[in-house]
This record gives sequence, structure tokens and C-alpha cells, in this order.
Amino acid sequence: MKKFISPALLLIFFALSAMGHYAHWSATLEFVISAIAVILVAGFLGRATESVAHYAGQRLGGFLNATFGNAAELIIAIMLVREGLFDMVKASITGSIIGNLLLVLGLSLFAGGLKHKVQKYNVTLAGMNGSLMIVAIIALFVPAIFLQTHVLHEDDRFALSLVVAGVLIVAYILWLIFSMITHKNHLADISEKDAEELPHEHAPAWSKGKSILYLVIATVMVAFVSEWLVHTLDTLTADFGLSELFVGAFVVAIVGNAAEHSAAIMLAMKNKIGAAVEIAVGSSLQIALFVAPVLIFVSHLFGKPMDIVFTVIELAAIGVSVFIAKSITQDGQTNWFEGVLLLAVYMILGVSFYLV
Amino acid sequence: MKKFISPALLLIFFALSAMGHYAHWSATLEFVISAIAVILVAGFLGRATESVAHYAGQRLGGFLNATFGNAAELIIAIMLVREGLFDMVKASITGSIIGNLLLVLGLSLFAGGLKHKVQKYNVTLAGMNGSLMIVAIIALFVPAIFLQTHVLHEDDRFALSLVVAGVLIVAYILWLIFSMITHKNHLADISEKDAEELPHEHAPAWSKGKSILYLVIATVMVAFVSEWLVHTLDTLTADFGLSELFVGAFVVAIVGNAAEHSAAIMLAMKNKIGAAVEIAVGSSLQIALFVAPVLIFVSHLFGKPMDIVFTVIELAAIGVSVFIAKSITQDGQTNWFEGVLLLAVYMILGVSFYLV
Amino acid sequence: MKKFISPALLLIFFALSAMGHYAHWSATLEFVISAIAVILVAGFLGRATESVAHYAGQRLGGFLNATFGNAAELIIAIMLVREGLFDMVKASITGSIIGNLLLVLGLSLFAGGLKHKVQKYNVTLAGMNGSLMIVAIIALFVPAIFLQTHVLHEDDRFALSLVVAGVLIVAYILWLIFSMITHKNHLADISEKDAEELPHEHAPAWSKGKSILYLVIATVMVAFVSEWLVHTLDTLTADFGLSELFVGAFVVAIVGNAAEHSAAIMLAMKNKIGAAVEIAVGSSLQIALFVAPVLIFVSHLFGKPMDIVFTVIELAAIGVSVFIAKSITQDGQTNWFEGVLLLAVYMILGVSFYLV
Repeated sequence: MKKFISPALLLIFFALSAMGHYAHWSATLEFVISAIAVILVAGFLGRATESVAHYAGQRLGGFLNATFGNAAELIIAIMLVREGLFDMVKASITGSIIGNLLLVLGLSLFAGGLKHKVQKYNVTLAGMNGSLMIVAIIALFVPAIFLQTHVLHEDDRFALSLVVAGVLIVAYILWLIFSMITHKNHLADISEKDAEELPHEHAPAWSKGKSILYLVIATVMVAFVSEWLVHTLDTLTADFGLSELFVGAFVVAIVGNAAEHSAAIMLAMKNKIGAAVEIAVGSSLQIALFVAPVLIFVSHLFGKPMDIVFTVIELAAIGVSVFIAKSITQDGQTNWFEGVLLLAVYMILGVSFYLV
Repeated sequence: MKKFISPALLLIFFALSAMGHYAHWSATLEFVISAIAVILVAGFLGRATESVAHYAGQRLGGFLNATFGNAAELIIAIMLVREGLFDMVKASITGSIIGNLLLVLGLSLFAGGLKHKVQKYNVTLAGMNGSLMIVAIIALFVPAIFLQTHVLHEDDRFALSLVVAGVLIVAYILWLIFSMITHKNHLADISEKDAEELPHEHAPAWSKGKSILYLVIATVMVAFVSEWLVHTLDTLTADFGLSELFVGAFVVAIVGNAAEHSAAIMLAMKNKIGAAVEIAVGSSLQIALFVAPVLIFVSHLFGKPMDIVFTVIELAAIGVSVFIAKSITQDGQTNWFEGVLLLAVYMILGVSFYLV
Repeated sequence: MKKFISPALLLIFFALSAMGHYAHWSATLEFVISAIAVILVAGFLGRATESVAHYAGQRLGGFLNATFGNAAELIIAIMLVREGLFDMVKASITGSIIGNLLLVLGLSLFAGGLKHKVQKYNVTLAGMNGSLMIVAIIALFVPAIFLQTHVLHEDDRFALSLVVAGVLIVAYILWLIFSMITHKNHLADISEKDAEELPHEHAPAWSKGKSILYLVIATVMVAFVSEWLVHTLDTLTADFGLSELFVGAFVVAIVGNAAEHSAAIMLAMKNKIGAAVEIAVGSSLQIALFVAPVLIFVSHLFGKPMDIVFTVIELAAIGVSVFIAKSITQDGQTNWFEGVLLLAVYMILGVSFYLV
């Protein structure tokens, strides 16, 4: 990761992005610059999180890693919620989930599989991940199907959304307790070595105090560049004739997850497929079980309540992604062709979202 | 089980329930009393069935256990069919299936998992159960989807329902032959010990003649208290503003399955997870593959034909329950967090049914 | 196979079928004769393909076998496309997929399971097959759900169809490379012996030159009898009051797949369950991933563009078939009752298609 993020480059794009925003440059240029800035700053945030996690000890560190892992997406999404762009919020949640399950996982399996004939990882963890994915899709699917077949009072719709969101957050917290405390060893056998190694590679660069300072700075920077990026999207969709859905699900999601993408693919090529799968699947689970429910609560704090009802095609996209990802990961071994299958589904969804 | 059912308590609640019914007590009071009576009498019926099964020898005994296992639900449902309350029949079938797959199984895995880190059972049986669940949901889903997209003559709708019901009953009988005769040992390896032990714990209490007599008495008593319970439901739904769907799917289903609930959870805590899963999953399979189809035929005997078409949200509820239960049980090992996931889905469905 | 196809019988039915067609015999008689002719000629084609494959060497031979395996269906479907009978094309694609996954596989598991208590095959191949089936159903499901919820310009609908078709064909070619070149041994362990044996049983009958000649002759004959068969279908549906859907999905599909049916069942009874599953599952994958997409492209060549959008009930039928087949095959072992379950689903679908 180190080689990818030069501090100078980071500051230059942050500054350019700010100038573009306040000086009202052309939306396309501003979009490109702020997208690059988001990718760089998200990478910086990821590194700062890892460093703080290193000093915080294994348990709290694991928790921090898990919680800040999608901080960039969460902040972008909060900006979108504040602007009332609910459709784009949901599209970007959809895009993050399918982007991680299909594009990141697909490229990881493909690249890793070209170098290594068969790659293996903990089959019990794969099974648990699969069940969590099923719960995530159920939690999004049930409110949608009930609300499509019955007309509900607005209060009831929000009540249902809040209860479902609450259930998911509790389930996610219990999952952290389960996977990091009560059944840590149970889930770790094969990828243990990878997990141990990872923090050590990057961590020693900064002192404890510096790490915390950088984490704060990175979070603030992400908040700013995210806002600047979000502001360009309206014009962008109009200029290029793209749908909010496509921009949210593919453009925003790819930008917001770029850091995970490169990390997962590099790990897969080093035959650390367990860690790569954890990034891709873990990230999408976090978005479905933690980021999305938190956004429901945040929207109520802003006084602009958002419900948890996704559109039919968003649900279909998430559903098919979960099914193919579950089918491919559940046997605990992967190969290049399984990567091809995930990418094929991603392409089919991408073209479909582009055309509607 | 013995300690749970005192004959005196049983007779008192049976008598109170009868008085409530014929003296027209308040519907709420009558509901509470007859619900308790149903739970007690169903427990008595379960014990009598086990005792008769003990004397009948392993094969016929297994068949009796399997067939009388859901006798209480079947009798309640027949009462509802006779009254023409088809919506509530289907809601209670839905509720029995999801109650067993989510609540009973969820509490069993959670309670068992808190005491035992990982609990294991026969993975081949888990696979067969999974496939049977899939067939059950297909049998309910296919007629619904065909009838939603095509207008069928009434005769054809009933013909389709009867054929599907017939196919399911034949499949269920062949499953009994498969699991109790041709492949008995194949499915039994881990839980064998549990299965052997269970009958011996309760059986010796009654002589052969007494057991049969009690089985007859219990069946008659269930029939009466079920009818008294059913009569309270109309007023109950009106008074509390509950939907038929919610009462059928959650209230009736929980009352009708109370005996299974306690048995499964106690078995799970004793680390007999195979037997606990068998009660929960086996019970829901029996309802889908045997009770529901029998009700279709029974309704024709009453001259009030009922079709097999469930509503979209009932199908969705059964569908998601099958998917998460299959995903969780298919690896043949369970832990407390898997119980949490099942209960999370149950809560999401419960709130949804309550609000619509 | 040898004993099933007598050259004299083949020629007699081919001649009768031609006479029936040009002399305008009654549609029913002509249908019966040309159906028998199709079955015989398809068997001849299958044998010629195997023989050519034998001389072509393992890799090219495998490719030929895979590509010509469904030549009869492909040719029948091309005839239907040329006539513009798109509904019947899609119905017959649906029927081929569900016929292979439910009827052929079901009869194979049932017949094989009656003779052999448990039959085992390569579990890795089973997993890959399952994932491919999921991709196939996703590729058909996604365009349908997007087009049902959004009105698309006609050009965009065909563009979407062509892109999806292209993705599937590329995935199918990569699958051939994966399964026959890069991971051949990985997928072959258990059924290896079967695969080796099969060509040798039939191959030596003809010389290399004769084999190629017969392959050409058989292909031309299939083209003719297929066209004669297709011409009888219109009158047949009208005379017997059958829907295009039922005729396409059950009658045409059974006739077109008769050769696979008998081969798979005989292999299963000889305990070569791996080869039997390969025929059934492989055949349905080939139709979904290769035949269907090729037909989309062919329809554009004919100037009568066909889209890839299947009806709701066709998708439902394919979807449930994939789910039950995947659930049953994924553990790499089979028994007679799993055959019963597949046949039960086939019967439910058959009655449903017949009644609508």
C-alpha cells in the first residue's frame, strides 16, 4: 500500500479538488479530480486505521478495522443523505455490495487463480459469511415485498425500517463478538497466518500519537472530498445522460471502494486468498449490516427520514450477487474460472444498469 | 416432559376452557385459557404418541411419531377449514413452518451454543432436509406464480392444487420409507445415540393398553380445545386490531407448537443437537409436505374446497426461512451466533406481519 | 447405444417423415413419425459425434462432444427462430433445461439408486456445475426483471440481449478451456474411469473418414426432420388444445433430448453416476450458456431479432429446477429418494404448464 500513496500527491489532489469546488470548474473535471482525491484520501484513512488498530491491541484493533473499514463509503453516503439524495444513497449501497462481491472478489479470484491453481481458505468462515449474506438480503427483501403488496401508513413504514435497521446493527455487533472473541480461533485456521502478518507490514511507520492524529485528519479530509464529489454528481448525470442509479451503483461505488480493490487483488496474488475474500465479502457485509442501517438512523437525526425500501432492480442485483458469491465461496476453495463467473455477472448487471 | 404435564392441571384447564366456551366468557380470557389448555393437551398427546410408538416397535413407531407429531396443528387447522377460515389456515401453516425453522431452531442453536462451543450432527441428513425444504417451497411457489400470471378456470385451480397436494403426500410417504427403512443407518450416524435414548426416557410410564387409550382420549381432547380456541380468534383479532395473518402466523402457530419448542431447546442444551434439529426441521417439513396437502383434500370432503395458493408475503416468509435455515444447517455444525441469525430473521418477519 | 439404432429403421422413419411432410398427411400422424425420426437421427448424430471425437484426440474431441452434444436441439430451435416462433423457441429452451435437470437427472438418480445404495462423484465438479447453473439463471433473470420494471427502447432491449448472450458465450468458451485444459484432472478424479471408458465402447465401429461423413450426413438429416417436426406443431397445438408453452417445454424438449435420456439412465444403472450427472447437468448448462445465446445471434442474422427475455413462468420453472438440482447434486452423492424429489418437481411443473 505504502508505495501507492505519496503524501505530496494526496495534498495536491486535495487542494485541486477544493479549488475545483470553490472556483466552480467544469463538473467533469471536478468529478475526475475529486474522485482521485477520494481514492487517495480513502487509502490514507485505511492506513491510519490499520496503524491505530495496531497500537490498540488485537480486539479493539479488530473492531476499529472493521468499523472504519468502510468509513469513506459511510461519509459519502451521509453527505448524500443530508442532500436528500436517497435514491443515490441506495444505489451506492447497492453498488458497494455488488462491487465488492462481484468486481473485487472476481478480480481477486481471477488474478490469484492465474498464479495459483487452487487457493483454499477456512470453510467454516465461508459458511458463516454465506449465512450473514443471506440475512442481509432477507433484511432488505422483506420490507420491500411487504410494502409492495400492502399500503402502509408512513409512520409504520419508517417504524418497520428502524426495527429492521436495529435488528441488523445488533446482529452485526454480535457477529463482531462472535468472530473476534468467542469463536476467533474457530474461524481463523487457514488465514490466521495472513491476518497476523498484515498489520506488521504497514504498522511500524508511525508512532501511536501520530497514528491517532492522522486518523482524525484523514476522516476530516474524507468528509470534505466526499462532499465535493457528491456535488459534481448532479451535473455529471445530466451531462452524460446517465441515470442516478448507474452513477450511484457503479461510479460512486467503484471510487469509494478503490482502496479495498487494490488491497484484495494484491493479497490474492500473494496466495493470501483468505484475507482477500475477507476484504471483499467482509466489506459488503459491513455495508449491508452496518452502514445501511446506520444511514437509516442518521437520516432521522437530520430530520429527513429515509426508509429501508430498495427498488426491485436494486434488490435483484444484490440478490443475484449474494447467490453467486455464496455458491462460489462456500466450498472454501477458489480458481480463476470462478473469478470469471463473478465478473460475468458484474458485466451483465453493469450493462443492465447502464441501459435502464 | 413428565414434570411439565400434571394430569390435574390438564383436566382443570380443559374444564375451564369448556366452561369459558359454553358460558360465553370474555373472548380474551377464553383465548388465554384455551391456549393453555391446547398447550397442555398437545403435550399429553405427544407423550401418548411416544408411548404407543414405543410398544409398536421401531418402524411403525417411527411412522406413528412422524404422523402424530403435528396432530395438534392438523386438528386446529381442520377446525379452521370447516369454518371456511382459509386465510387463517394458510397463515397458521406459514406460521408453523417459519416458527419451527426460525424460532424453535434459533432458540435451540442459541441455547445449545451458549453451553457448547460447536455442536455437530449428521451432515447427510442435513443435506436431505435441505432438499426436502426446497421441494416444499417449490410446491407452494409454483402454483402461486402460475396463477398470478394466468387466469385459470376455478376447476383447473382446484385440479392443480389437488395434483400438487397428491405429489407432496406421495413424496412424504416415500421419504418415510427412505429415512426409516432403506437408508435408516445412512442418516443416523451421529444422532443415533440420541434417537435410541429418547423413547426409553419417557416410555415405561404406561402399559400398552393404557397408552392406546390415552392416545384416543388425547386426540379427542385436542379436537375439543382446538375448536374452542378457534372460536375466540374472530373476536380477538377485532378487539386487539390484529390482522388474521398475524394471529394465524404468530399466535396460533406458537400455541400449536409449544410442545416442540420446549423439547427441542432442552435437547439442544443437553448437546443432543441432532435430535433438536430433527424436531424443528422435521416438524416444518411435515407441515409443508403432509399437513398442508392433507388439508387440501379434507377441504374437498367438507365441500368447501381450499386451493394451495398462498399469498405473496406468506410465500416470501416461508421462502426466506427455508433459505436461511438451509444455509445454516447444511454444514452439519452449529453455534450460538447461527441461532442469533435465525432469531433476527424471525423478528424482522414478526414486525412485518404485525404492521401490515 | 448400438442396439438402439438400426440403420434400416433410421432410413425408414426418415423416408416416412419426408412422405408425411410433402404428401400432407394428418398432423398427428406426421408429428408421431417425425418425432420418432428426430429421436433416431439425433441418436445417430450423437454416435457420429462420439466417433469423430475419438479420432480427434482428447482435447478437440472433448470440445466436439460438448459442442455437438445438443446439435439436435440447436437445429430444431434454429428452424423455430426462422419461422419467427419465438415463444416456442423459449419454451423449448426452458423445457430442455428443466427436462435435463429434473427428468433425465431424476430418472438417473432413481434408477441408479434402486440398484446402488449411495452413488458418489466428484464434489468439486458438482460445485462448479452449481455455480454455472446459478450464472445461467442470473443471465436470464436480470434482463427480465430490468425490462419488467423499466420501459426500454427496442434497440436497447436487443443491445442488452446481445451483450448478455455475448458474455454467456465467452463464459462458456472459458469453461471449456478450464474444464478440458487448465483444470482437467482437478475435475475428473472419480468419474475419470467412466470418461475414459465411454468413447472406447462405441468408437471402434467406424473408420475416421466414415465417421466424418456420417457426422455431416447426420447433421443434414437432423436439419430436415427437425423442420418437418416443427411444421406439425401449429396444427398439433390447435387440434389438442395444448398451449405453445406446453408443447415447447414438454413435447419438443422430450423428443429433442431422448438420446441423452436413455444414455444417462443406462450409465447410472451401471454405477457410472458421475457420467450420468455430466450428461444431464452438462446438457442443460450447454443449452443455457451456449444454445440460447447462439440463437439470439442467429435471429439477428435472419433479420428477425429475438430478445433474451423469458416469461415469468419460464424463469420460475428454470429457477426452481436449478435450485433443487443444485441442492441435490452439491454434496457429490446421490440416492433413489433424491431422484424422487427431482421427478416430483418435474410433475408439479408439468401439470402447471399443462393447465395454463
